[in-house]
Amino acid sequence: MFRNVSVIGAGRAGSAIAARLRERGVSLREDAELRILCVPDRAIAEAAGSIEPGPWVAHVSGATPLDALDPHVRRFSVHPLQTLVRTRGPEQLDGAWAGVTAESPEGYARAVWLARTLGLRPFELADDRRAVYHAGAAIASNFLVTLYRVASHLVAEAGAPPEALVPLMTRTIENGFELTGPIARGDWETVERHRAVLRGTPFETLYETLAEATRT
Amino acid sequence: MFRNVSVIGAGRAGSAIAARLRERGVSLREDAELRILCVPDRAIAEAAGSIEPGPWVAHVSGATPLDALDPHVRRFSVHPLQTLVRTRGPEQLDGAWAGVTAESPEGYARAVWLARTLGLRPFELADDRRAVYHAGAAIASNFLVTLYRVASHLVAEAGAPPEALVPLMTRTIENGFELTGPIARGDWETVERHRAVLRGTPFETLYETLAEATRT
Repeated sequence: MFRNVSVIGAGRAGSAIAARLRERGVSLREDAELRILCVPDRAIAEAAGSIEPGPWVAHVSGATPLDALDPHVRRFSVHPLQTLVRTRGPEQLDGAWAGVTAESPEGYARAVWLARTLGLRPFELADDRRAVYHAGAAIASNFLVTLYRVASHLVAEAGAPPEALVPLMTRTIENGFELTGPIARGDWETVERHRAVLRGTPFETLYETLAEATRT
Repeated sequence: MFRNVSVIGAGRAGSAIAARLRERGVSLREDAELRILCVPDRAIAEAAGSIEPGPWVAHVSGATPLDALDPHVRRFSVHPLQTLVRTRGPEQLDGAWAGVTAESPEGYARAVWLARTLGLRPFELADDRRAVYHAGAAIASNFLVTLYRVASHLVAEAGAPPEALVPLMTRTIENGFELTGPIARGDWETVERHRAVLRGTPFETLYETLAEATRT
């Protein structure tokens, strides 16, 4: 669909995307038919504004509306729903999904082409639903890090190795997020013991808030 | 170390433990040298009280102190740090860790033997640190389920398939819980967008509490 593509930005997303396109035989060059902006969210509008209208222009941000790509009208976005790190390569895109957003059938066809070429599974993401989508993604990934940090701190206080939590958390996902443990069993005495030991610590509110959300 | 063992209770833990012991060639019978109580936490004391003193007695609860095994003095506990479901067998113990608690070298040796025989990696868990340990385990596993439920709800509101979160969450663990996303980038505009879209929803406090914990 595009014989040549420019990838602008060499951060976590840009590096993985450029490497994947190269693997797929897509020619990477300046002044290409498609310019993919892989710059920080707040730099997208300026980067878009510096491109002479004509080529297709896309961004890969989950949270940024398409109008950040003004004045371009041949535009779309593909957001890889994945946490990308510098120590991995393009293979980290494999199996991940991608929210694709466009304003025309031509735009969608191109967004889906890019997602599939990157090895991503596209789903349609409405431009005006990005905030709730991205909040969900942040809760799932970023706050998972927070749970691990908090839980690590607590089990380490009991002398347990924090890495002992890894098989537990991995299996929780593998089990399709089936809830086990005291709240699932209605074992409120154990929940009360957790509460008592966390009272007055920085984790008291976090525990209360999540326990409440788990019950309901 | 024990030629024969009784497993009392056939719930999630008891079923997996009995099946694993059978696989390892340990004879399961009543009136054995070791009685493993795999009953609900609140039933442990009564189950222990109904056993004539003599054999070793153990429980597999994370939250319950050893004195629930009174009047037995030859006692210990082995808590598999894993979420167990009925749809899996003894293989779900593989690779998991276990908190082992005892009051004597003899007790520890037996607890470690049981953990290893079950395929678990033992670490020492002090009896008086159980509450903080178990709170950490519940945060890591049970609240992970809650994060997924909340995030699923939010991405579904945007038309995204909730299963799209699975590769994201799995990779977050595989990446050693490296934090990415807006808080890691100091992108407070995006955090503010999340806040705005969650304001007045049941998830407002959860987001605020976890965002605060992530920042610090």
